Amino acid sequence: MLAVTILGNNSALPAFDRHPTSQLITMDEHLFLLDCGEGTQMQIAKYKIRRSKINHIFISHLHGDHYFGLIGLITSMGLLGRVQPMHIYAPAPLKEMISLQLKVADTNLPFPLHFHPLQEEGVIVVDQKFEVSCFRVYHRIECWGFKFRQIKAPRKVSPERAREHEVPSSFFERLKWGEDYITKQGDIVKNEWVTDASSKGKSYAYSADTIYDERIVDHVSGVDMLYHETTYLKDLEERATKRFHCTTAQAATIAKKAGVKKLIIGHFSSKYETLDQFETEAKEVFPNTELALEGVTYRI
Amino acid sequence: MLAVTILGNNSALPAFDRHPTSQLITMDEHLFLLDCGEGTQMQIAKYKIRRSKINHIFISHLHGDHYFGLIGLITSMGLLGRVQPMHIYAPAPLKEMISLQLKVADTNLPFPLHFHPLQEEGVIVVDQKFEVSCFRVYHRIECWGFKFRQIKAPRKVSPERAREHEVPSSFFERLKWGEDYITKQGDIVKNEWVTDASSKGKSYAYSADTIYDERIVDHVSGVDMLYHETTYLKDLEERATKRFHCTTAQAATIAKKAGVKKLIIGHFSSKYETLDQFETEAKEVFPNTELALEGVTYRI
Repeated sequence: MLAVTILGNNSALPAFDRHPTSQLITMDEHLFLLDCGEGTQMQIAKYKIRRSKINHIFISHLHGDHYFGLIGLITSMGLLGRVQPMHIYAPAPLKEMISLQLKVADTNLPFPLHFHPLQEEGVIVVDQKFEVSCFRVYHRIECWGFKFRQIKAPRKVSPERAREHEVPSSFFERLKWGEDYITKQGDIVKNEWVTDASSKGKSYAYSADTIYDERIVDHVSGVDMLYHETTYLKDLEERATKRFHCTTAQAATIAKKAGVKKLIIGHFSSKYETLDQFETEAKEVFPNTELALEGVTYRI
Repeated sequence: MLAVTILGNNSALPAFDRHPTSQLITMDEHLFLLDCGEGTQMQIAKYKIRRSKINHIFISHLHGDHYFGLIGLITSMGLLGRVQPMHIYAPAPLKEMISLQLKVADTNLPFPLHFHPLQEEGVIVVDQKFEVSCFRVYHRIECWGFKFRQIKAPRKVSPERAREHEVPSSFFERLKWGEDYITKQGDIVKNEWVTDASSKGKSYAYSADTIYDERIVDHVSGVDMLYHETTYLKDLEERATKRFHCTTAQAATIAKKAGVKKLIIGHFSSKYETLDQFETEAKEVFPNTELALEGVTYRI
């Protein structure tokens, strides 16, 4: 399972009940937080997300609408008694800021906080079942995109064949990952008897805040779903470029050139009260586009 | 006019749609912000407060639930094109934090930001019509209370007598502050002919986060309205003391000893879903108590 839940889809100024950027990535049993604008902890509560299951937070860049909610989220996690480690991947200066904020509050977090400064493109988290990599995008300040990839997709369990071999449904999750089942009598039920190979692992790429730049295409090439920012409609391309942001048409062009399966767009400027035109314009270039709407989960 | 609008009334963890601490003080044409927990800029938008009229922000202490929303508020003010100066009164380390956050974002605010570190008790802002002073309260870290006082109260205009002397209602605001009116014919209408002396200026004191400490009594003695924290109900006095907070009964005792006219209570722990019991318990000690409820304006 790979899915993206939008917690905030607006650009710098909160407006029209749209919040600054944050996304929750669900990859099987793991939850990852991607950017953390002001109020993210309230959005997490609103959408009943189990914050204790978030162990990795990725921050694309140090403009406030992408990280001002981080310190509140981690101090609240501390107040709630979290003990398991938290890993933060972000531009280096964030570490000093967090340290200073904890120091002046005389706060000792009850959990280990591991800070991983982003330094070069490549894989930053690797696990048996997934990997996360980062790549540069092109904004006014240092800014990173992230790619989430299932290393191997789970196998498909055949409930009928599993029942024939008396494999209990409680073991299905382990079957998905290739394990054989051993019956009470000690007989082996080979995994391939009761499962089928799946298609390859799913992938999601997040391009953060960026000017239109085709260097991004290679990094997101062929992903199942791409999030690309569209701060402005296409008539404001000049403004977008000046501010190192993108328009609908530009985002959709990246999606098209990269041959992704699906595009979601967000980071809408607070000058727009309604969003329909964003969808219309992006679909003209890349038909399989959806708006990134708060509270909505996009399954891949 | 002196009034207090509650923007956030909860303690450290946002819960039950209650937000971290922030209050807006309206003193005649001036707006002051008192503490600025995460999400305050959204609360300001929700309650349709004219943020451009806020020129002074007071931060009691550097626990996050009292200031994590400040950097977002001031950077948003910059994005909205604010030009007039902003004055911030806060414990000294906040200055370094704001500077660091602006620096890493490569942000230059388009307005002057004047930082006034709180150092000793006494008057910190003085104006023709009001003054603001600070006093120490007793929390786990350096923490300040604030007192807002109208220096002289406006005179009471008698509409009947003003009409008799043909003073237009557009001049009433200036009558309130003691001006004489000069008619088109050049005749003087003496202020006292059409106004009456008022009672003395109104006052409001805010005790921030504090353990029960009677040293506070002198500072808030006789104010028209006192805000005092009540993080816990009275059965949790031991926990309150351990955490340098107060119970309902303790807050009401301070109000009683100080002979204030009215008490409002807030900073409720997130362990409480409902608040009725806070009001009941405080009123047992100090009857003229109200809960500080978000979105409500308490006129003095």
